[in-house]
Amino acid sequence: MSDITNLEVALGSRSYHVLVGEGLLAQAGDQVRRVAPAERVTLISNDTVFELYGDAVVQALKAAGYSVDVVRVGDGERHKSLSAATNIYEKLTSFGAQRWDPVVVLGGGVIGDLGGFVAGTYMRGVPLIHVPTTLLAQVDSSIGGKTAVNLPAGKNLVGMFYQPRLVLSDIAVLASLPAKYALGGLSEVLKYGFLEGKDLLAFVEGNLADVIALRSSEMRQVVAWCCKTKARVVSEDERDEGRRAILNFGHTVGHALETLQGYGTYEHGEAVSIGMAAAAVIGLKAGLTDETTARKVVGLLSRAGLPVRLPSVPAEVIAGSILLDKKARDRQMRFVLLRKIGEPVVTSVPEDVVVGSLGQANHLIDRML
Amino acid sequence: MSDITNLEVALGSRSYHVLVGEGLLAQAGDQVRRVAPAERVTLISNDTVFELYGDAVVQALKAAGYSVDVVRVGDGERHKSLSAATNIYEKLTSFGAQRWDPVVVLGGGVIGDLGGFVAGTYMRGVPLIHVPTTLLAQVDSSIGGKTAVNLPAGKNLVGMFYQPRLVLSDIAVLASLPAKYALGGLSEVLKYGFLEGKDLLAFVEGNLADVIALRSSEMRQVVAWCCKTKARVVSEDERDEGRRAILNFGHTVGHALETLQGYGTYEHGEAVSIGMAAAAVIGLKAGLTDETTARKVVGLLSRAGLPVRLPSVPAEVIAGSILLDKKARDRQMRFVLLRKIGEPVVTSVPEDVVVGSLGQANHLIDRML
Repeated sequence: MSDITNLEVALGSRSYHVLVGEGLLAQAGDQVRRVAPAERVTLISNDTVFELYGDAVVQALKAAGYSVDVVRVGDGERHKSLSAATNIYEKLTSFGAQRWDPVVVLGGGVIGDLGGFVAGTYMRGVPLIHVPTTLLAQVDSSIGGKTAVNLPAGKNLVGMFYQPRLVLSDIAVLASLPAKYALGGLSEVLKYGFLEGKDLLAFVEGNLADVIALRSSEMRQVVAWCCKTKARVVSEDERDEGRRAILNFGHTVGHALETLQGYGTYEHGEAVSIGMAAAAVIGLKAGLTDETTARKVVGLLSRAGLPVRLPSVPAEVIAGSILLDKKARDRQMRFVLLRKIGEPVVTSVPEDVVVGSLGQANHLIDRML
Repeated sequence: MSDITNLEVALGSRSYHVLVGEGLLAQAGDQVRRVAPAERVTLISNDTVFELYGDAVVQALKAAGYSVDVVRVGDGERHKSLSAATNIYEKLTSFGAQRWDPVVVLGGGVIGDLGGFVAGTYMRGVPLIHVPTTLLAQVDSSIGGKTAVNLPAGKNLVGMFYQPRLVLSDIAVLASLPAKYALGGLSEVLKYGFLEGKDLLAFVEGNLADVIALRSSEMRQVVAWCCKTKARVVSEDERDEGRRAILNFGHTVGHALETLQGYGTYEHGEAVSIGMAAAAVIGLKAGLTDETTARKVVGLLSRAGLPVRLPSVPAEVIAGSILLDKKARDRQMRFVLLRKIGEPVVTSVPEDVVVGSLGQANHLIDRML
């Protein structure tokens, strides 16, 4: 019970708490009961995560008096689909799930987005509890209420804002993460560092080996730090109409790469890492980001073991995909660029500057390393 | 422009106006532009309605400077499905529809629920304008933000609350409604009369022939009256957690009948009419509704030409369907019953009272007529 960090996402009647600490899976039953008392609960998870932690969570829920039905979804981004959602809806009706029965979503960002969307739309919304099991989900996707599924035309094109009642981030689960997933989350951690300034970034930089190794003592601090930042930004702008856009640093190019390569070639965090490096170059070419800042971004991502070079896709094709994405307007592309570390700016960049920057990006990035 | 009634649904930052009057279709372009300026608009309609009014609305939108893409959906409740929603999403992406491009939904309750759900979930929500073309949609489903699609297990099991930016109710379209649809709406009009008291009910009763014939001068008053009632109830309880439940008068049994018969056997309003008659009988048997009130409900529905007798489905089967529906809890069934005209009560009724009442309902109803 010791060392649980309790953060609030302040959203009026939709406010909720994010708990960060070790051993929270074992408390899941009591914690869920506090926010959603009922007779039964539906646990939505994916195959890999359920193998690792499913029993622990089911036992905790049963110990708190719930009857538990489990829905397992296959692994990977391709299951974040309308057809997967349809399958879950049909299971919920077969369980007799009612509007007050909580849905607990156990897994990473994919299952969080999918399970959140289902919980937000089944019977026009049932109580949702996120139990994120990847670093990426703990520091980012479990907080803030963005839910979504993909369409063939692009990622996250169908979704809604639906806030959970509670987020339980058990740091202990990070120890069993495959390295690929750990790196993805590290990319988001560095994003918070670039956006929020020097303290978090200095801590990560100074403890890079331990952070990459996901050592619990460092991660508890890092995750709580990131969650606090995310909670504050979400409280200021729940529906992503203003300030929250800064959280898209690296995501404009990142999403385009994920769409173009087909889901699954890059982990989300890897695509975002390349996107942040690209945003550093675009900022440099647009005269907004200074060379020291760009070098800091590219260098730290690279030292953390994250990819920074663009794949061999023509710059025009990447730009075309960005224009189709929901962040584009009037053939101006909205980018989050860094004036300096800790000073993000949301700005429009003309198509030709984007294309020109992307065309030169790998050359410039190689020179910074 | 004369005789337009302008009502506000007061919901803070989600407030919007409902315009009721003749000739509003021709103003659609200018009115949509006021709430959702953009370069293009998607018009979602169904085959029958689009044949009648599609051109008028498309022309009005074009005259206001919009480029217009049209999505047509087949007629009928069976199209209120996840697969229909999926088709529309794919059309929206093929049009390059962006998050600021409005969706105008032209049609009755089915297309309104489906189009509203798509607008609420595409890119996590795009501007939505309802142009309801049935009496039912004008007085009820276009106001209040309930959107939904059906699952095989039941009606409206997937959906969300998503408020439109504007509702345009053109009274002139009612003149061309097939009688079956007109009756369905009349059922909801009478519902508002039963719930809200004597003035509306007396007006409808005193002008029953003209109201049934959907004469414009009477309908403008009736529709505005109903919309005002609905707007007030929605403003008090947007998410249907309290007072808004009174609007479900007749819907508990009504939904069950629609589910059991397969969608489309009854029009929604017909099922609700039978449901209101059933609620009158249940209220009577539960000792809550007096005989005069029950007789008034059953008699007026019948005189309006609406069905009041239950189909030959065993009472236990109807009760079982209600228990699966989202209004059930702990094998108690939530019903809206009338203490008197204008005095609705939301209350739990034990399963055996419901089954007993439904078993005797047709016998009692025949005696009241």
